[in-house]
Amino acid sequence: MQYTHHPGFVLWFTGLSGAGKTTISQALEAILRERGVRVERLDGDTVRQHLTKDLGFSKADRDTNIERVTFVAKLLSRNNVGVLAAFISPYRYMRDRVRTETTNFIEVYVDAPLETCIRRDVKGMYAQALAGKIENFTGINDPYEPPEKPDIHLRTDRETLEESVAKVLEYLEQRALIPVDEPSAR
Amino acid sequence: MQYTHHPGFVLWFTGLSGAGKTTISQALEAILRERGVRVERLDGDTVRQHLTKDLGFSKADRDTNIERVTFVAKLLSRNNVGVLAAFISPYRYMRDRVRTETTNFIEVYVDAPLETCIRRDVKGMYAQALAGKIENFTGINDPYEPPEKPDIHLRTDRETLEESVAKVLEYLEQRALIPVDEPSAR
Repeated sequence: MQYTHHPGFVLWFTGLSGAGKTTISQALEAILRERGVRVERLDGDTVRQHLTKDLGFSKADRDTNIERVTFVAKLLSRNNVGVLAAFISPYRYMRDRVRTETTNFIEVYVDAPLETCIRRDVKGMYAQALAGKIENFTGINDPYEPPEKPDIHLRTDRETLEESVAKVLEYLEQRALIPVDEPSAR
Repeated sequence: MQYTHHPGFVLWFTGLSGAGKTTISQALEAILRERGVRVERLDGDTVRQHLTKDLGFSKADRDTNIERVTFVAKLLSRNNVGVLAAFISPYRYMRDRVRTETTNFIEVYVDAPLETCIRRDVKGMYAQALAGKIENFTGINDPYEPPEKPDIHLRTDRETLEESVAKVLEYLEQRALIPVDEPSAR
Protein backbone atom coordinates (compact mmCIF):
# COMPACT_ATOMS: atom_id res chain seq x y z
CA MET A 1 0.00 0.00 0.00
CA GLN A 2 1.40 3.34 -1.07
CA TYR A 3 0.58 6.02 1.47
CA THR A 4 0.26 9.66 0.58
CA HIS A 5 1.32 12.58 2.74
CA HIS A 6 -1.66 14.28 4.33
CA PRO A 7 -2.52 16.11 7.54
CA GLY A 8 -4.44 14.44 10.33
CA PHE A 9 -8.12 15.22 10.80
CA VAL A 10 -11.18 14.10 12.73
CA LEU A 11 -14.47 13.58 10.93
CA TRP A 12 -16.91 13.59 13.82
CA PHE A 13 -20.24 12.08 12.80
CA THR A 14 -23.02 13.09 15.20
CA GLY A 15 -26.71 12.34 14.93
CA LEU A 16 -29.55 10.16 16.17
CA SER A 17 -29.35 6.41 16.29
CA GLY A 18 -30.31 5.17 12.83
CA ALA A 19 -29.41 8.42 11.06
CA GLY A 20 -26.64 6.68 9.12
CA LYS A 21 -23.43 7.60 10.96
CA THR A 22 -21.84 4.16 10.84
CA THR A 23 -22.91 3.38 7.28
CA ILE A 24 -21.45 6.62 5.95
CA SER A 25 -18.24 6.33 7.94
CA GLN A 26 -17.70 2.74 6.78
CA ALA A 27 -18.17 3.72 3.13
CA LEU A 28 -15.74 6.62 3.57
CA GLU A 29 -13.19 4.43 5.33
CA ALA A 30 -13.02 2.10 2.33
CA ILE A 31 -12.66 4.93 -0.18
CA LEU A 32 -10.05 6.81 1.83
CA ARG A 33 -7.96 3.67 2.36
CA GLU A 34 -8.04 3.04 -1.36
CA ARG A 35 -6.69 6.55 -1.90
CA GLY A 36 -3.78 5.82 0.44
CA VAL A 37 -5.10 7.94 3.30
CA ARG A 38 -4.30 6.60 6.76
CA VAL A 39 -7.60 6.27 8.61
CA GLU A 40 -8.97 4.76 11.78
CA ARG A 41 -12.69 4.35 12.35
CA LEU A 42 -13.99 4.64 15.89
CA ASP A 43 -17.54 3.89 16.94
CA GLY A 44 -19.34 2.19 19.78
CA ASP A 45 -18.61 -1.26 18.39
CA THR A 46 -14.90 -0.69 17.81
CA VAL A 47 -14.17 0.95 21.17
CA ARG A 48 -16.48 -0.91 23.54
CA GLN A 49 -14.37 -4.03 23.90
CA HIS A 50 -11.14 -2.45 25.01
CA LEU A 51 -11.78 1.16 25.87
CA THR A 52 -15.26 1.68 27.26
CA LYS A 53 -16.72 -1.65 28.30
CA ASP A 54 -17.43 -0.35 31.80
CA LEU A 55 -19.70 2.40 30.51
CA GLY A 56 -23.47 2.63 30.14
CA PHE A 57 -25.68 5.39 28.75
CA SER A 58 -26.12 7.75 31.67
CA LYS A 59 -25.07 11.32 31.04
CA ALA A 60 -21.87 10.84 33.07
CA ASP A 61 -21.02 7.64 31.21
CA ARG A 62 -21.69 9.20 27.82
CA ASP A 63 -19.34 12.05 28.69
CA THR A 64 -16.63 9.65 29.88
CA ASN A 65 -17.06 7.65 26.68
CA ILE A 66 -16.48 10.74 24.55
CA GLU A 67 -13.56 11.81 26.75
CA ARG A 68 -11.71 8.56 26.14
CA VAL A 69 -12.44 8.61 22.43
CA THR A 70 -11.24 12.22 22.34
CA PHE A 71 -7.91 11.20 23.85
CA VAL A 72 -7.44 8.57 21.14
CA ALA A 73 -8.58 10.95 18.37
CA LYS A 74 -6.20 13.62 19.64
CA LEU A 75 -3.17 11.34 19.49
CA LEU A 76 -4.08 9.95 16.07
CA SER A 77 -5.02 13.24 14.41
CA ARG A 78 -1.85 15.02 15.52
CA ASN A 79 0.15 12.19 13.96
CA ASN A 80 -1.37 12.60 10.49
CA VAL A 81 -4.07 9.98 10.81
CA GLY A 82 -7.62 10.65 9.63
CA VAL A 83 -10.11 9.62 12.29
CA LEU A 84 -13.69 8.70 11.40
CA ALA A 85 -15.61 8.87 14.67
CA ALA A 86 -19.29 7.93 14.71
CA PHE A 87 -21.01 8.61 18.03
CA ILE A 88 -24.46 9.96 18.80
CA SER A 89 -22.63 12.50 21.03
CA PRO A 90 -25.85 14.33 21.87
CA TYR A 91 -24.39 17.18 23.90
CA ARG A 92 -23.07 20.26 22.17
CA TYR A 93 -20.51 21.14 24.84
CA MET A 94 -18.92 17.71 24.57
CA ARG A 95 -18.57 18.01 20.79
CA ASP A 96 -17.10 21.47 21.26
CA ARG A 97 -14.59 19.99 23.68
CA VAL A 98 -13.51 17.41 21.10
CA ARG A 99 -13.00 20.26 18.64
CA THR A 100 -10.61 22.07 20.96
CA GLU A 101 -8.64 18.89 21.75
CA THR A 102 -8.08 17.50 18.27
CA THR A 103 -6.40 18.46 15.01
CA ASN A 104 -8.63 19.55 12.09
CA PHE A 105 -11.91 18.66 13.75
CA ILE A 106 -14.82 18.49 11.31
CA GLU A 107 -18.34 18.26 12.71
CA VAL A 108 -20.52 16.21 10.39
CA TYR A 109 -24.21 16.37 11.25
CA VAL A 110 -25.83 13.17 10.05
CA ASP A 111 -29.36 14.44 10.00
CA ALA A 112 -32.59 12.53 9.54
CA PRO A 113 -35.92 13.31 11.21
CA LEU A 114 -36.66 11.26 14.30
CA GLU A 115 -39.68 9.73 12.51
CA THR A 116 -37.38 8.44 9.75
CA CYS A 117 -34.99 6.93 12.28
CA ILE A 118 -37.89 5.30 14.13
CA ARG A 119 -39.21 3.90 10.84
CA ARG A 120 -35.78 2.46 9.95
CA ASP A 121 -35.14 1.15 13.50
CA VAL A 122 -32.20 -0.90 12.25
CA LYS A 123 -31.40 -2.43 15.63
CA GLY A 124 -34.93 -2.59 17.02
CA MET A 125 -33.89 -0.13 19.72
CA TYR A 126 -36.54 2.53 19.07
CA ALA A 127 -39.31 -0.04 19.51
CA GLN A 128 -37.84 -0.97 22.88
CA ALA A 129 -37.29 2.64 23.90
CA LEU A 130 -40.84 3.61 22.89
CA ALA A 131 -42.12 0.65 24.92
CA GLY A 132 -40.30 2.13 27.91
CA LYS A 133 -37.76 -0.70 28.09
CA ILE A 134 -34.66 1.46 27.58
CA GLU A 135 -33.75 4.46 29.69
CA ASN A 136 -31.77 7.40 28.35
CA PHE A 137 -32.43 6.67 24.70
CA THR A 138 -31.50 9.72 22.67
CA GLY A 139 -34.46 11.29 20.89
CA ILE A 140 -37.04 9.37 22.93
CA ASN A 141 -36.31 9.97 26.58
CA ASP A 142 -32.96 11.74 26.39
CA PRO A 143 -32.11 14.98 24.60
CA TYR A 144 -30.22 15.49 21.34
CA GLU A 145 -28.73 18.92 20.75
CA PRO A 146 -28.28 19.36 17.00
CA PRO A 147 -25.16 21.18 15.79
CA GLU A 148 -25.82 24.87 15.26
CA LYS A 149 -23.24 25.33 12.54
CA PRO A 150 -21.93 21.93 11.46
CA ASP A 151 -19.01 21.88 9.06
CA ILE A 152 -20.90 19.39 6.91
CA HIS A 153 -24.65 18.82 7.00
CA LEU A 154 -25.88 15.52 5.57
CA ARG A 155 -29.61 14.90 5.12
CA THR A 156 -29.80 11.15 4.89
CA ASP A 157 -33.57 11.19 4.39
CA ARG A 158 -33.12 13.13 1.13
CA GLU A 159 -29.68 12.09 -0.11
CA THR A 160 -28.35 8.73 -1.25
CA LEU A 161 -25.37 7.23 0.54
CA GLU A 162 -23.25 8.08 -2.50
CA GLU A 163 -24.31 11.72 -2.34
CA SER A 164 -23.51 11.97 1.37
CA VAL A 165 -20.11 10.35 0.86
CA ALA A 166 -19.33 12.64 -2.08
CA LYS A 167 -20.10 15.71 0.03
CA VAL A 168 -17.60 14.67 2.68
CA LEU A 169 -14.90 13.82 0.15
CA GLU A 170 -15.36 17.17 -1.57
CA TYR A 171 -15.03 18.96 1.76
CA LEU A 172 -11.82 17.08 2.60
CA GLU A 173 -10.39 17.85 -0.84
CA GLN A 174 -11.26 21.53 -0.64
CA ARG A 175 -9.50 21.82 2.70
CA ALA A 176 -6.54 19.92 1.23
CA LEU A 177 -6.81 17.26 3.92
CA ILE A 178 -6.74 14.46 1.34
CA PRO A 179 -5.28 14.30 -2.17
CA VAL A 180 -7.68 15.23 -4.94
CA ASP A 181 -8.89 12.18 -6.80
CA GLU A 182 -7.78 12.41 -10.41
CA PRO A 183 -9.10 9.45 -12.36
CA SER A 184 -6.55 10.10 -15.13
CA ALA A 185 -3.66 9.73 -12.68
CA ARG A 186 -4.76 6.31 -11.46
CA MET B 1 9.57 19.84 11.35
CA GLN B 2 10.69 17.44 8.66
CA TYR B 3 9.36 13.95 9.34
CA THR B 4 11.10 10.85 8.13
CA HIS B 5 9.41 7.68 6.93
CA HIS B 6 9.59 4.94 9.52
CA PRO B 7 7.50 2.01 10.71
CA GLY B 8 5.44 2.18 13.88
CA PHE B 9 6.71 0.49 17.02
CA VAL B 10 6.01 0.18 20.73
CA LEU B 11 8.83 0.54 23.24
CA TRP B 12 7.25 -0.99 26.33
CA PHE B 13 9.18 -0.01 29.47
CA THR B 14 8.41 -2.36 32.35
CA GLY B 15 9.98 -2.40 35.78
CA LEU B 16 9.57 -1.47 39.42
CA SER B 17 8.54 1.98 40.54
CA GLY B 18 11.71 4.05 40.68
CA ALA B 19 13.64 1.87 38.22
CA GLY B 20 13.84 4.72 35.72
CA LYS B 21 11.10 4.00 33.16
CA THR B 22 9.80 7.53 32.88
CA THR B 23 13.22 9.20 32.94
CA ILE B 24 14.53 7.00 30.13
CA SER B 25 11.37 7.33 28.01
CA GLN B 26 11.39 11.12 28.37
CA ALA B 27 15.01 11.33 27.28
CA LEU B 28 14.30 9.08 24.30
CA GLU B 29 11.22 11.07 23.35
CA ALA B 30 13.27 14.24 23.01
CA ILE B 31 15.99 12.57 20.93
CA LEU B 32 13.56 10.75 18.65
CA ARG B 33 11.53 13.90 18.00
CA GLU B 34 14.72 15.71 17.08
CA ARG B 35 15.43 12.99 14.54
CA GLY B 36 12.02 13.52 12.94
CA VAL B 37 10.49 10.34 14.35
CA ARG B 38 6.80 10.58 15.20
CA VAL B 39 6.44 9.54 18.82
CA GLU B 40 3.84 9.56 21.57
CA ARG B 41 4.77 8.92 25.17
CA LEU B 42 2.24 7.17 27.38
CA ASP B 43 2.59 6.70 31.12
CA GLY B 44 0.42 6.92 34.19
CA ASP B 45 0.58 10.70 34.26
CA THR B 46 -0.29 11.20 30.60
CA VAL B 47 -3.20 8.74 30.49
CA ARG B 48 -4.77 9.14 33.91
CA GLN B 49 -6.64 12.34 33.21
CA HIS B 50 -8.57 11.23 30.15
CA LEU B 51 -8.28 7.50 29.82
CA THR B 52 -7.97 5.80 33.18
CA LYS B 53 -9.04 8.18 35.89
CA ASP B 54 -11.57 5.65 37.24
CA LEU B 55 -8.87 3.05 37.93
CA GLY B 56 -6.94 2.13 41.07
CA PHE B 57 -4.20 -0.41 41.66
CA SER B 58 -6.09 -3.66 42.21
CA LYS B 59 -5.16 -6.48 39.86
CA ALA B 60 -8.37 -6.01 37.85
CA ASP B 61 -7.79 -2.26 37.58
CA ARG B 62 -4.17 -2.71 36.55
CA ASP B 63 -5.26 -5.08 33.80
CA THR B 64 -7.94 -2.68 32.58
CA ASN B 65 -5.40 0.13 32.60
CA ILE B 66 -3.05 -1.87 30.36
CA GLU B 67 -5.96 -2.93 28.12
CA ARG B 68 -6.89 0.67 27.37
CA VAL B 69 -3.30 1.69 26.80
CA THR B 70 -2.90 -1.31 24.51
CA PHE B 71 -5.81 -0.14 22.39
CA VAL B 72 -4.20 3.27 21.97
CA ALA B 73 -0.76 1.77 21.29
CA LYS B 74 -2.26 -0.57 18.71
CA LEU B 75 -3.87 2.25 16.73
CA LEU B 76 -0.78 4.45 16.90
CA SER B 77 1.80 1.79 16.10
CA ARG B 78 -0.07 0.50 13.05
CA ASN B 79 -0.13 4.06 11.73
CA ASN B 80 3.65 4.49 11.82
CA VAL B 81 3.88 6.20 15.17
CA GLY B 82 6.51 5.18 17.71
CA VAL B 83 4.96 4.67 21.13
CA LEU B 84 6.99 5.02 24.33
CA ALA B 85 4.91 3.34 27.02
CA ALA B 86 6.17 3.36 30.60
CA PHE B 87 4.09 1.26 32.98
CA ILE B 88 5.12 -1.02 35.84
CA SER B 89 2.96 -3.68 34.10
CA PRO B 90 3.93 -6.35 36.62
CA TYR B 91 2.19 -9.31 35.01
CA ARG B 92 3.88 -11.27 32.26
CA TYR B 93 0.67 -12.39 30.56
CA MET B 94 -0.52 -8.79 30.19
CA ARG B 95 2.75 -7.74 28.57
CA ASP B 96 2.51 -10.72 26.26
CA ARG B 97 -0.98 -9.61 25.32
CA VAL B 98 0.28 -6.15 24.40
CA ARG B 99 2.89 -7.83 22.20
CA THR B 100 0.26 -9.73 20.21
CA GLU B 101 -1.96 -6.65 19.80
CA THR B 102 0.57 -4.08 18.63
CA THR B 103 3.01 -3.50 15.78
CA ASN B 104 6.74 -4.02 16.43
CA PHE B 105 6.41 -4.50 20.18
CA ILE B 106 9.72 -4.18 22.03
CA GLU B 107 9.87 -5.22 25.67
CA VAL B 108 12.35 -3.04 27.55
CA TYR B 109 13.13 -4.32 31.02
CA VAL B 110 14.14 -1.34 33.15
CA ASP B 111 15.90 -3.28 35.83
CA ALA B 112 17.19 -2.09 39.18
CA PRO B 113 17.25 -4.10 42.41
CA LEU B 114 14.36 -3.43 44.74
CA GLU B 115 16.83 -2.11 47.34
CA THR B 116 18.05 0.49 44.85
CA CYS B 117 14.50 1.59 44.06
CA ILE B 118 13.69 1.81 47.77
CA ARG B 119 16.82 3.89 48.33
CA ARG B 120 15.89 6.26 45.48
CA ASP B 121 12.20 6.42 46.50
CA VAL B 122 11.64 9.36 44.17
CA LYS B 123 7.98 9.82 45.07
CA GLY B 124 8.16 8.71 48.70
CA MET B 125 5.90 5.79 47.84
CA TYR B 126 8.14 3.00 49.10
CA ALA B 127 8.30 4.58 52.54
CA GLN B 128 4.51 4.63 52.66
CA ALA B 129 4.20 1.10 51.30
CA LEU B 130 6.76 -0.22 53.79
CA ALA B 131 4.82 1.51 56.55
CA GLY B 132 1.75 -0.42 55.42
CA LYS B 133 -0.05 2.68 54.17
CA ILE B 134 -0.40 1.57 50.53
CA GLU B 135 -1.97 -1.69 49.40
CA ASN B 136 -0.94 -3.49 46.24
CA PHE B 137 2.40 -1.76 45.90
CA THR B 138 4.51 -3.68 43.40
CA GLY B 139 7.63 -5.17 44.93
CA ILE B 140 6.45 -4.66 48.50
CA ASN B 141 3.06 -6.27 48.84
CA ASP B 142 2.25 -7.07 45.21
CA PRO B 143 4.23 -9.26 42.80
CA TYR B 144 6.45 -8.21 39.90
CA GLU B 145 7.12 -10.83 37.26
CA PRO B 146 10.36 -9.89 35.49
CA PRO B 147 10.58 -10.44 31.72
CA GLU B 148 12.14 -13.81 30.91
CA LYS B 149 13.60 -12.74 27.59
CA PRO B 150 13.26 -8.98 27.21
CA ASP B 151 14.19 -7.47 23.85
CA ILE B 152 16.29 -4.89 25.68
CA HIS B 153 17.61 -5.22 29.23
CA LEU B 154 18.65 -2.01 30.95
CA ARG B 155 20.44 -2.13 34.30
CA THR B 156 19.87 1.34 35.65
CA ASP B 157 21.86 0.62 38.81
CA ARG B 158 24.99 0.04 36.71
CA GLU B 159 24.47 2.18 33.60
CA THR B 160 24.19 5.92 33.19
CA LEU B 161 21.05 7.37 31.64
CA GLU B 162 23.07 8.09 28.49
CA GLU B 163 24.15 4.46 28.26
CA SER B 164 20.61 3.18 28.68
CA VAL B 165 19.31 5.59 26.05
CA ALA B 166 22.11 4.65 23.64
CA LYS B 167 21.24 0.95 23.97
CA VAL B 168 17.65 1.58 22.97
CA LEU B 169 18.59 3.81 20.05
CA GLU B 170 21.05 1.22 18.78
CA TYR B 171 18.37 -1.46 18.97
CA LEU B 172 15.90 0.70 17.02
CA GLU B 173 18.52 1.48 14.39
CA GLN B 174 19.52 -2.16 13.99
CA ARG B 175 15.92 -3.15 13.43
CA ALA B 176 15.59 -0.26 10.95
CA LEU B 177 12.73 1.21 12.96
CA ILE B 178 14.35 4.64 12.99
CA PRO B 179 16.81 6.28 10.62
CA VAL B 180 20.46 5.83 11.53
CA ASP B 181 21.93 8.98 13.02
CA GLU B 182 24.73 10.21 10.81
CA PRO B 183 26.36 13.27 12.34
CA SER B 184 27.93 14.16 8.99
CA ALA B 185 24.49 14.39 7.36
CA ARG B 186 23.11 16.84 9.88
